[in-house]
Amino acid sequence: MPHSTTSAGFFVTLEGIDGCGKSTQAKLLAEAFRSLGKTVVATREPGGSPGAEEIRPLLVEGHKTRWLPETEFLLFTAARFEHFRIVIGPALSAGKIVVCDRYVDSTRIYQGVVRSDLRRLVDLLHERLGIRPPDLTILLDLDPEMAFERRQATRSSEMRFESFGKDFQRKARQAFLGLANENPERIKVIDATRALEIVAQQVFEAALEKHRE
Amino acid sequence: MPHSTTSAGFFVTLEGIDGCGKSTQAKLLAEAFRSLGKTVVATREPGGSPGAEEIRPLLVEGHKTRWLPETEFLLFTAARFEHFRIVIGPALSAGKIVVCDRYVDSTRIYQGVVRSDLRRLVDLLHERLGIRPPDLTILLDLDPEMAFERRQATRSSEMRFESFGKDFQRKARQAFLGLANENPERIKVIDATRALEIVAQQVFEAALEKHRE
Repeated sequence: MPHSTTSAGFFVTLEGIDGCGKSTQAKLLAEAFRSLGKTVVATREPGGSPGAEEIRPLLVEGHKTRWLPETEFLLFTAARFEHFRIVIGPALSAGKIVVCDRYVDSTRIYQGVVRSDLRRLVDLLHERLGIRPPDLTILLDLDPEMAFERRQATRSSEMRFESFGKDFQRKARQAFLGLANENPERIKVIDATRALEIVAQQVFEAALEKHRE
Repeated sequence: MPHSTTSAGFFVTLEGIDGCGKSTQAKLLAEAFRSLGKTVVATREPGGSPGAEEIRPLLVEGHKTRWLPETEFLLFTAARFEHFRIVIGPALSAGKIVVCDRYVDSTRIYQGVVRSDLRRLVDLLHERLGIRPPDLTILLDLDPEMAFERRQATRSSEMRFESFGKDFQRKARQAFLGLANENPERIKVIDATRALEIVAQQVFEAALEKHRE
């Protein structure tokens, strides 16, 4: 069932808890690659394709207890499959660089914090559906207290995951660090407490290094 | 990951192509069981629980090419998981009879007609998520031409699957019959060309026979 991915593209994802600066750093990374003359597709999850964007409100709006963890995992995977097939896969096949704000690691961590045995099912389903893993994942590591302060400036209707609270975010942070430890080849941890420009420089350097490999 | 299902309830599903009379027969079967003093939960898919009903419009409205078959399968499974955990499972655990208009066989058939290797993934995911199969499935078999005529009387905004056309319905009918052939213990085929009352009688008899086992 998996289909081959022999593309020449380069696929970077940014991960971390809410408020760690993923969206900003994703934009800056896309701009940095473009300044080198590269063609970049900057996208985000959940969403990123017309169908996936229709699924997005179910996931990011409403009450935190809206879904059972398994349902949430299936909805995220449905949105991701659309996003991968319609946007990410074709861009990579065309040799483009794809920068994505959140991807499969968020599903592993967020649904896995609630129900730890789901992580194996995440892996299995992504493999069976042929959803390609990223070439590089930047984990922006930040203390949940600091992340929470940063988020106060950007409140929106899409606060469902933030409403899970600081204890949940602390567990998510530890789970992200654990995942990075298990996947040192793919996941690069970057300290997100430093100034935005310094973090951006480190993210770009990590991406360039991996891109050259 | 599967959880045990030691309930004393009885779980009947009705399947078949659009217009074969499933919804009507599901209502009549529920009434027939109630007339015997049984407690019956009559439900339907996609939907049947608050969360699943929020997923339903994504599946039954809009253009037929709205989703890739894999996405459709994941959305149906998300809705089914909610429905099973919130409504069907608790009812069965309480010893009730559950009558459901469409269930996992529809996913096997409709998404499987488009992408045949999805059927194994349907089986795998339902098993891993602990979504219990029905005790009995009534397959109402009808020629798509006759089903189409019957449907003309009940047009609604939820016509997405009907828009797949008669050739699709013919393939779906054959696939349903093939599935019944593979599962003779669980799936009972009933000729749906006969009068409504006769079909209802046959459905009830089949259900009673299985319920006694």
